[in-house]
Amino acid sequence: MSPIGEHSQAEANTRPIRITEVGPRDGLQNEPGVIPTESKIAFVNALSRTGVVEIEAGSFVSPTAIPQLADSDEVFRKIERMPGVVYSALVPNERGLERARTVAAQKIAVFTAASETFTQRNIHATIRESIERFASVISGAKRGGMTVRGYISTAVFCPYEGRIEPTRVVDVMKQLLELGVDDISLGDTIGKASPTDVRTLLDTVLPHITCERVSLHFHDTYGMAVANALTAWWGYGIEAFDSSAGGLGGCPYAPGASGNVATEDLVFALKASGATVPVDEVKVMAAARQIGSHLGHPLASRLSKVQTIRPESKE
Amino acid sequence: MSPIGEHSQAEANTRPIRITEVGPRDGLQNEPGVIPTESKIAFVNALSRTGVVEIEAGSFVSPTAIPQLADSDEVFRKIERMPGVVYSALVPNERGLERARTVAAQKIAVFTAASETFTQRNIHATIRESIERFASVISGAKRGGMTVRGYISTAVFCPYEGRIEPTRVVDVMKQLLELGVDDISLGDTIGKASPTDVRTLLDTVLPHITCERVSLHFHDTYGMAVANALTAWWGYGIEAFDSSAGGLGGCPYAPGASGNVATEDLVFALKASGATVPVDEVKVMAAARQIGSHLGHPLASRLSKVQTIRPESKE
Repeated sequence: MSPIGEHSQAEANTRPIRITEVGPRDGLQNEPGVIPTESKIAFVNALSRTGVVEIEAGSFVSPTAIPQLADSDEVFRKIERMPGVVYSALVPNERGLERARTVAAQKIAVFTAASETFTQRNIHATIRESIERFASVISGAKRGGMTVRGYISTAVFCPYEGRIEPTRVVDVMKQLLELGVDDISLGDTIGKASPTDVRTLLDTVLPHITCERVSLHFHDTYGMAVANALTAWWGYGIEAFDSSAGGLGGCPYAPGASGNVATEDLVFALKASGATVPVDEVKVMAAARQIGSHLGHPLASRLSKVQTIRPESKE
Repeated sequence: MSPIGEHSQAEANTRPIRITEVGPRDGLQNEPGVIPTESKIAFVNALSRTGVVEIEAGSFVSPTAIPQLADSDEVFRKIERMPGVVYSALVPNERGLERARTVAAQKIAVFTAASETFTQRNIHATIRESIERFASVISGAKRGGMTVRGYISTAVFCPYEGRIEPTRVVDVMKQLLELGVDDISLGDTIGKASPTDVRTLLDTVLPHITCERVSLHFHDTYGMAVANALTAWWGYGIEAFDSSAGGLGGCPYAPGASGNVATEDLVFALKASGATVPVDEVKVMAAARQIGSHLGHPLASRLSKVQTIRPESKE
């Protein structure tokens, strides 16, 4: 298998970019404020009209673990589902799968990590145990007609172990794929990966999976997320990215830091670089501003600070 | 001449990165607040101890045009000059040169642009007229033992004309080089260049100048500055960049927008990518925080928002 699957790089770089909007889940989960349920519903509805192909609309983990998302069932029940948009939810176990099924989520996401220490501290299991727990969740989801995403956190750096060898990412990824996971999201959880690290990771990972099944999940903690995404697209034909409207969220390991790369900044940079991106970054910002009024701090995205986008910005 | 001068790319990418710190000039010029002269002096003195090779410490333009920098003479007289650091000033004309000479600036910078409309509106001259005015300034500076930088603004996009053809940059650059300018700073004045644009620019420009004489000057208006710098370093061996501690400054064409790329974000990203960067980003942030207390808004850099930089961040 070539590094970019069955296509040439030139072909890969003309296929449309697919954005998974993670603001309603990864973003809000890491915001200290409590957002009214109606505002979350309006947020998801607004995002549905931006051109993103997937929205991670909630999380069916324990409400005591993540109180910010305790109302995910209600959010899922009340959003208007736009044809062509996939609404997914984070699910840790069979109880979460049952909640996802009850509200008719089309897709679930299971999560583990490439760092043993991170997995122990984050989900109190070894990586192996976390994957074993997923087996029945994944098979249950697939039987119910859902698709399944597998998150691999700390794919480059771990806040406890430091640099993670890319071969460890491949090990975890292979186990998830064997269980039937449809696509893999590789997360730079603490935002310390550079484009050089991204190249090393993709050189190691892409021989083991078609490029189309990989999404990259960058955090902008140190300001390298846009550079990383452009490197993965330009150099490797990666066409799927996770991002958060307005740059919502933060980093549990770096208080005050920026969160997920902002959808509008990522979309603008990819378009400016020549990519086909069927997402309207102005609508994304409008959605972020609406939810931003509950946050108590300005949005983190660069685009949201530009008061005047002149006509030339569309060139 | 090869695209990266007389060296191979691998060699180019191991030479130390040279940072021209433009916070005291381009940064403060675009901040609305008035900074006490003593704070500017302390800022330059702190920057002198960070590892940057050049500090643009002031501007000898008309004080009515840029009141924020009206005290540049006093700043130059009172800073402690660190051996190995070059202290430069923006100079528009012979009167400015005389002021630079009086305070013993080692280097001056003259400024024009690649866009005719921008030059007309910004310095009320055609590009040709602006360069003719510089002839005597440059020769006077050289006779006095100063080195001379030539700024070419709007090297990729103009706020009035839109996209600028790289051949227009080459035209202006050649004229400046013929007048004896030592190094050229190519400015993405409104921050709309993408890495793809940077590649096109450098493909066109580098056959006409050795790579070592080029500095790239990115603004982070739309969040692409770090990606641009890494592309220029990794792909072309560019080793000189302009940046501003804390991301000081803004964009006159986009109120509220981010300013120059933050020195600490740029240094962190280059180091993380494997570059040799003899600059201490923690000291840069400390310098920025001191001046930041006068600004009335938080610093724009990503690094400055990270409360806890764990030991792993130094890997």
